[in-house]
This record gives sequence, C-alpha cells and structure tokens, in this order.
Amino acid sequence: MTHAERIARLRLIRTPNIGPVSWRQLLQRFGSGEAALDALPDLALRGGRATLRIASAEAAECECDRVAELGARYLFIDDADYSPLLRAAEGAPPVLIVRGDSAMLARPCVAIVGARNASAIACRFARQLAADLAARGVTVVSGLARGVDTAAHVGALGGATAGVIASGIDIAFPPENAALQEKLASDHLLIAEQPPGTEPLARHFPARNRIIAGLAHGTVVIEAAPKSGSLITARRAGDYGREVMAVPGSPLDPRAQGCNLLIREGATLIQTVDDVLEAVGPIDTRMAREPRRDFVPAVAAEPMGDGDRDAVAGLLGPTPVAVDELVRQSGRPAAAVQLVLLELELAGRIERHAGARISLL
Amino acid sequence: MTHAERIARLRLIRTPNIGPVSWRQLLQRFGSGEAALDALPDLALRGGRATLRIASAEAAECECDRVAELGARYLFIDDADYSPLLRAAEGAPPVLIVRGDSAMLARPCVAIVGARNASAIACRFARQLAADLAARGVTVVSGLARGVDTAAHVGALGGATAGVIASGIDIAFPPENAALQEKLASDHLLIAEQPPGTEPLARHFPARNRIIAGLAHGTVVIEAAPKSGSLITARRAGDYGREVMAVPGSPLDPRAQGCNLLIREGATLIQTVDDVLEAVGPIDTRMAREPRRDFVPAVAAEPMGDGDRDAVAGLLGPTPVAVDELVRQSGRPAAAVQLVLLELELAGRIERHAGARISLL
Repeated sequence: MTHAERIARLRLIRTPNIGPVSWRQLLQRFGSGEAALDALPDLALRGGRATLRIASAEAAECECDRVAELGARYLFIDDADYSPLLRAAEGAPPVLIVRGDSAMLARPCVAIVGARNASAIACRFARQLAADLAARGVTVVSGLARGVDTAAHVGALGGATAGVIASGIDIAFPPENAALQEKLASDHLLIAEQPPGTEPLARHFPARNRIIAGLAHGTVVIEAAPKSGSLITARRAGDYGREVMAVPGSPLDPRAQGCNLLIREGATLIQTVDDVLEAVGPIDTRMAREPRRDFVPAVAAEPMGDGDRDAVAGLLGPTPVAVDELVRQSGRPAAAVQLVLLELELAGRIERHAGARISLL
Repeated sequence: MTHAERIARLRLIRTPNIGPVSWRQLLQRFGSGEAALDALPDLALRGGRATLRIASAEAAECECDRVAELGARYLFIDDADYSPLLRAAEGAPPVLIVRGDSAMLARPCVAIVGARNASAIACRFARQLAADLAARGVTVVSGLARGVDTAAHVGALGGATAGVIASGIDIAFPPENAALQEKLASDHLLIAEQPPGTEPLARHFPARNRIIAGLAHGTVVIEAAPKSGSLITARRAGDYGREVMAVPGSPLDPRAQGCNLLIREGATLIQTVDDVLEAVGPIDTRMAREPRRDFVPAVAAEPMGDGDRDAVAGLLGPTPVAVDELVRQSGRPAAAVQLVLLELELAGRIERHAGARISLL
C-alpha cells in the first residue's frame, strides 16, 4: 500500500460521520481510499449536507509520525496480519494501532473478561485459567482493566496475551497498569483503535469490547454484574457467532449474577481449561474452520435519483430498522440502498446500530 | 383394604428378594397380596429355589402394632393419599410409613437437597429459597440431613415441608436433628420406607433419595460434590422426567462442582424462587399436567414352560440388560418375560437395576 493510500484511508476513518461500516462501504464502492476521499464531498451533498469536515492530510501525517515515534504501527483491515477473526466481525475497525507481536492473533484466541472489583477468588481463577490456556498455545485477549482483565494478562505472561485498550496507545489506564501495559507492548501485543493522545472516554469502552470479542474464538466471563461491560463483550461475542462462556458463582454474590444470567441464556458453564477448549473446539482445526469473510474492495452500484433517495429516507424513523428490511420495502437493489445510507450517514442524518440496523438522527 | 390383605402385602415387601418392582408385578399378576403370598413358593420353585424365606405373619403383625404405637400409619401405593407423583416413578415404594399430614403431598412439591458440610452462604440460600417456596404454597421435600437439608426444612416451617428419612420412623439421624424430625412429624410430614427400628445403613440412602426425587415436581441441588448423594437424587429426578435444577457456585469450591456439572449437563440454573417456579411450571396447573400412571392390580399372563424360562435366563449375564431387549430377543410376550424374571428374582438369581434393567447374580 502506498503512503498516499494509507493517508487517504486514515483521513476517511478520522472524518466525523464515517464509522467502520461506511468506511468499508466507501472502499468497496470506490476501490481505494484515495478515490473514496475524492468522492466524499459529492456524496455528502447528495445526502443533504453542503459541507463535510474531512480530516486533513496534515492531521493524518502528524498522527502517522506520532505512531511511528511511539514504536507502534498501523494494521489495516486488509493487511495480512490483521486478525481474520476480527475482520469477519460486523463493524470491525478499519485500522488498528498496535505495538508488539501481531502474529499472536494468528493463533487460537480466547478472551477473558470480568469485573473490575472482582473477588480474590475470581482473580485467582482468571489467572490460573489464563495460564492454562497460554500453556496450551492459546492467546489470551483482554482489556487491561482492573480485576479480572489484569489477572488474565498476568496469568498468560508465560505464553501469549493481547491487551485491547479504550484509549490511545500512548495512554495507560488505569494508571497502576502502566507497567503491565508496557510489558504487553514490548513482549506481547497491545492494541488501540483510537489515535494516540485519546483519553479513554466512556463511549470508547463498548467499542473496545467489540474488538475483544471480535479477536477471539470465544469469550469467558468471570464475575460480572448484570449490566456490566463484560456482558456487552459477551453479547458481542454471541452476535459474532463466537462461543460465549461464563464462570458461575453464588447467586448471593451480585458479581456472579451476570455470569449466572449468561448461563441461563445458554452460555457454556466453565469450570476448567478443558471446558474452554471443548467449547471453542479442537485447537488444531479451529483456525481452519473459521469462515473467511475477507475484505475485498470492489466497485459497486450506480447512485440513485433523488426520488429513490427520498423513498429510502422515507422508510427510516427514530426506531432502528434492518438494512435488509429497507431493501425489501424499497424494492431497490441492496447496493443502491447501501449507497443512499452512506450518503445520509455522511450528511449526519442517520445512525448505525448493531445488527446492521439504521435509525434517523 | 382388609387387615388380612394389609398383612399379606406387608409380608410380601418384607420378604427377601422381593423389591418394589417385583412386589408390584406380583400384585398385578395375582390381583391381591393374599393371592400373591399363596403363589410365592410355587414361583420360587419354578425360578430354581426349593425354599423361600417368606416374612412371617407374626413379624408383620408385630410391625403393624409398633407403627400404631408410634403414632404412625401405613400408606400403600394404591391408597388415595399416597403421592400420585411418587406412584408414577419407577420402583416406587409399595408402602410408606408416615407421621403427620400426608395431604401436603397433594400440593406442588419441590425437593431441595445438598451438601451436609454446606457453606454458611449455601445454608442461608437454602433457607430463604425454602421459605419463598413455602410462601407460594409449595411443599418443600428434603432428607433431614445436616447442612442444606436441615436449612430447607427450617426455612419451610412457616408453610409445608416433608422429610424423608433413611432409617425407621422411630430413629432420628443425625441425632442433633431429633427435635426437627419430631416437629416435622407433629406439624408437617415425616416419611420412612424402612420398618421401625431400622438403623440408617449406607444402602438405605440412595433408596431414600429416590423417594425425595419421586415426590417432587423438581429437585433443586444446592452445593454438592461431584459424587455426592445429592447428585443421585438429581439424576433420579431426571430419570423420572422431573425438573433438575441447581444453584451454581465458584468452580474453586469443591462443594459447587457437582451443581456446576449438573448445569453443564442441562440442569436449570437457579438464582431465585421465580427461577424455580418458572422451571416447574405454573403452580395452578402443574398438578393437573402430571401424567396419571396409577397402580392397578390386574391378572396377567400364564406361566411359560421350562424351555421358555431357560431361553430367557440364557439371555441374561452379569451386564445389566433392558427388559425390553429381553422381550425383543426372546420373542415372548412381555407379560410372560416379566413373570419369568419375577420367578428368577424370587429364586435370588437376578438383580434389578434402574431403568428396568436386569443382570444375573
């Protein structure tokens, strides 16, 4: 990939109103980041917006320099060492910023997540499970948070472990994990979606959680309250068709109730490393069994007329509706409907939700 | 039922080599206990045994007197207040000895069982769950053992609770539960299968457990080691087509591993009383939905010739084989095969196993 193309792709994803789904559609439609960038003003105009604040080339160059300075590098979604599992997940990040050994993502991966205020017994369990998985050649993925995440990374240090953070790659959160984060970056793998300098805001955590779920063949939840971020990770894993696993606990412990709920809903109850390996399938064949849903840029449909665009927009409302449903109800080709949605998104008129659903803003 | 018939039935079940299954078949074949008693020597002879030590009339009368003296009474399997649920279970006791209010068994029943060495938290959970169930009109069935059983009975004292013991009805075990056992006998319901004076031997406990499982619409296990008696109760509940429920716990606590195992095998994970009620179904309709598999004495097939008997015996070996399989392989009518098996059992030549399976002794 040329430097100019990398910069163009980076400018696209750093532009407001362009999320992972529309980024992918732009590249599929226009064949390259550079071509998509050229087409942006026109698309936004057709969507109903006169001016679109596109991320500048200067800002992108500056970010590139900073990434290099930090000893980090970009992994684009079509790079060979971008995780094929994550690539197959809906809304996968177009680009990651990583430090360390990205080949760890080519091994079988299992995510271990859980409560920040976990009990001592849960942390001990997480550490031991991670050590056992690492000893069996599994890369342990987690989020470098307090409690279960930390225990999982520490347990897997003798093998391979990948930490996915909600901040930029140069910011350690929580501060007490700065040394562990640096250890992962130097000896294992550290992954960030946000550009350097980004503080970990609340809205970044669910986005981080989808990456953890997307990287792994399965997610094990150890102690989680019913409305915790760990359950978001578990539900994302389920959305992606991955194994959802949970370690049970006493119903009288609020920290166990989320895990018990997951098990009631069908998650696999985990007591030992063998339970995990049985759930995610034989290590040797697991990578091969995963569906290859590669990212292939390709030129797609022609734009529609204004009438058609209004017809699609008219089907939208504040309640999210599935893209498939829009295609069915509008009677237009899927590629054409996707293009209209792209235009509307660039114009800041719609919002994308999980499960390929769309609502008006 | 006449006194003579009661004595005859009692003599049958107190005779060695006559278990619950053959007792039932004897009554079905001969229409009454008295007729079956008359036929016994002949049957045993055909099975290959010259003399059968039949329980004496004197011993049966003596037991009857003792039961009355203890303020207890017999419940025969075809008595109106014998639990219809238990009657429907394979190998149900032909006769129970009870003290207290047997009408409690006509309500929805849930068994709560678990570890004798249960943790404080598990006992608290058992007590609360039992209290919640009792408050909803459910009879709580358990085994009066230390730990979870005791907590369950105590929790349900405000409603209805039935205790099933492995000893005779006049023996309290463990000794520290003597007062609780007496309380159940006077205000609730106390049930024994063994005659008065029987000490609780190891082999009586699995038999007691089948009664607990058989009496209840579902069994909840709270803390149980992987090879504990509570798991036997749970598996029996499963055999009988009842709900199997388990309360999870940390995999690092050996007392939780049996419950977690049950959940992995498909038992419903229980966190609250509502989870139990949802699993066993709506209280109002549950009793009506239960299949009525009543006990009906009826005259059955003619005895077979010696050649046929040898043919059936020839199909048996030390490995248990299903009665259905014997019927299929022998090509004889089911009733005739059952009769041969009865004869062989009376002669002490075969053993019956769960799931209507038979082996040579």
